[in-house]
Amino acid sequence: MKRKIKVVVWGLGSMGSGIAKMILGKQGFTIVGAIDTDPSKVGRKLWDILGIEENEDNGCVITNKAEEVIKKGFADVCVMATASFTKVVFPSIKMAAEAGMDIVSTAEEMAYPRVLDPELSDEMDRIAKENNISILGTGVNPGFIMDLMVIALTGVCDTVDKINVARINDLACFGKAVMVEQGIGLKPEEFSEGVKNDTVAGHVGFLQSFGMFEEAFNVKFNNVRQEKEAILTNVPRSTDIVSVNPGDVAGCRQIGYASLEDKEFIVMEHPQQIRPELENVDTGDYISIKGYPNIDLQIKPEIPGGIATIAICVNMIPLVMNSTPGLKTMLDLPVPRAIIGDVRELVDNRE
Amino acid sequence: MKRKIKVVVWGLGSMGSGIAKMILGKQGFTIVGAIDTDPSKVGRKLWDILGIEENEDNGCVITNKAEEVIKKGFADVCVMATASFTKVVFPSIKMAAEAGMDIVSTAEEMAYPRVLDPELSDEMDRIAKENNISILGTGVNPGFIMDLMVIALTGVCDTVDKINVARINDLACFGKAVMVEQGIGLKPEEFSEGVKNDTVAGHVGFLQSFGMFEEAFNVKFNNVRQEKEAILTNVPRSTDIVSVNPGDVAGCRQIGYASLEDKEFIVMEHPQQIRPELENVDTGDYISIKGYPNIDLQIKPEIPGGIATIAICVNMIPLVMNSTPGLKTMLDLPVPRAIIGDVRELVDNRE
Repeated sequence: MKRKIKVVVWGLGSMGSGIAKMILGKQGFTIVGAIDTDPSKVGRKLWDILGIEENEDNGCVITNKAEEVIKKGFADVCVMATASFTKVVFPSIKMAAEAGMDIVSTAEEMAYPRVLDPELSDEMDRIAKENNISILGTGVNPGFIMDLMVIALTGVCDTVDKINVARINDLACFGKAVMVEQGIGLKPEEFSEGVKNDTVAGHVGFLQSFGMFEEAFNVKFNNVRQEKEAILTNVPRSTDIVSVNPGDVAGCRQIGYASLEDKEFIVMEHPQQIRPELENVDTGDYISIKGYPNIDLQIKPEIPGGIATIAICVNMIPLVMNSTPGLKTMLDLPVPRAIIGDVRELVDNRE
Repeated sequence: MKRKIKVVVWGLGSMGSGIAKMILGKQGFTIVGAIDTDPSKVGRKLWDILGIEENEDNGCVITNKAEEVIKKGFADVCVMATASFTKVVFPSIKMAAEAGMDIVSTAEEMAYPRVLDPELSDEMDRIAKENNISILGTGVNPGFIMDLMVIALTGVCDTVDKINVARINDLACFGKAVMVEQGIGLKPEEFSEGVKNDTVAGHVGFLQSFGMFEEAFNVKFNNVRQEKEAILTNVPRSTDIVSVNPGDVAGCRQIGYASLEDKEFIVMEHPQQIRPELENVDTGDYISIKGYPNIDLQIKPEIPGGIATIAICVNMIPLVMNSTPGLKTMLDLPVPRAIIGDVRELVDNRE
């Protein structure tokens, strides 16, 4: 049997830890390095951090010095789950690429980096090709349910006049960072203020999804805009992290619009809130294509965000390793698929 | 502007005519040849057969002599809509490949030819590479809704324990050939006899879909089997083509099973009938994945078979033209997508 595929996991927050666990649950992977800046994690063994039993694949020591593990010949792949923005992750991506590692990033902006950072994207593409590796940003959204799946469905259409996509999800399982980003627990006036001064970030992804649509359809949208509205609750809603009183903000409804030649072409709606069931809101993913033919898809409940992002990042590893070199998006690679057997058998041309 | 993409359409039945019309509705295509054996079509102009207005892209004369249009330098692409079986279409594919044309085939078995015809598949792959072209079989099913979309959905799963796929559709719009293939209008005993002696062919595609699953997951199924049951109607059902009395056959329910290590892993159910609404049967496409996470998808009504097959064949043309040479499946290529603008802009590296 070929040697195992060596992975470095960069970032051991909720996504990175989940990615590490999923990788270790598959045959044919070994995690040779793990990077995190959290002092409570640095110096401990990976299995200890993840709360799993020790074995030969999970014994690496968490380091906060990336250069200890991001170096030539040390690993085949680096999975990064550290930040949302291309500019922030670019130096890490450059480092891992120059160390000859294929890269999968959870950064939302990296799902389609060209839309906000065309120069950095050119630079990443150049570095990837120089080092004969590939770089992919992915996740459930952006990267899959509100863009890739929609685009794939248009593949059975002759004409497409209008696309509506909605993702109505429950944030109850998420941690403090997400509650702050979405403005959950704020008074309505604090939410408005937060939207103005960008402390209520909302969903990062619509612009990237629009970029994927533009590339897939080879069009240029106009009137691209986004709105963020507070979802005010009529009933008390609470999680382990936050309690929201009636009249206060239980979530953020983000709406994105893009037109083709001034005609509204895509509307994306993404109301994210805690415990929507308390007001009888059904969660789900909804795709409606008006054209020839019309297509109406629903997935109820919605594809759960956390595990789905973890899974797609891991499942794309063999496809990224098999790809031609360069900066890639989900549009460039074959469709994702679950890893069921030994991952080594999915990777072409390895020594 | 680059010159238009030259297409030969081989077969002008219901699928082929639809493909020709759709191609002519897009910018950047021209149809330079059309082949059919029907004496009522041969010698007439394409626009006349299609019932559309004449223009510079639709004036070719229908021929029954393939060699008149399947020759080197005559076209970039050949779209074939002639038959369901690999062995039947192979000689045409070989001829078009040796004439240097990229090929899209509607033949159901060509969606995954390797499962029934591994040697012919090797041969097609070799010929494709020798002639620097690509060959793809596709359609709505097999090729998209009961396989590719299911596989893509597993891409957001950590584990997959069991997959159920159902496509409940209405055949009322189809012609006589489909009615005969599905045994519609027969007495129950005639249907049973037809299943035994293969005159009731049912759906061609489950074995191909299973082959795609096996490749995507890198597994080998066992206990692969199919059943065909008559759908007996309780009420009179009729179309322009056929009238079915209560107690007789209004359709064929095909069920396919595949196991992984003796555990049932995929069940595909495809009841095809005329006018299911007369007995309050909802049509739709349904995908259920049991695993982590569970995913339940529905598309109601179902993606309509005819136009969807036409559309995916046309929409895949630029992706096939951009592909590396060889025999390809939907697993090898990027996701399908509607052609919205000028198709020439979607094709890389053309003179």
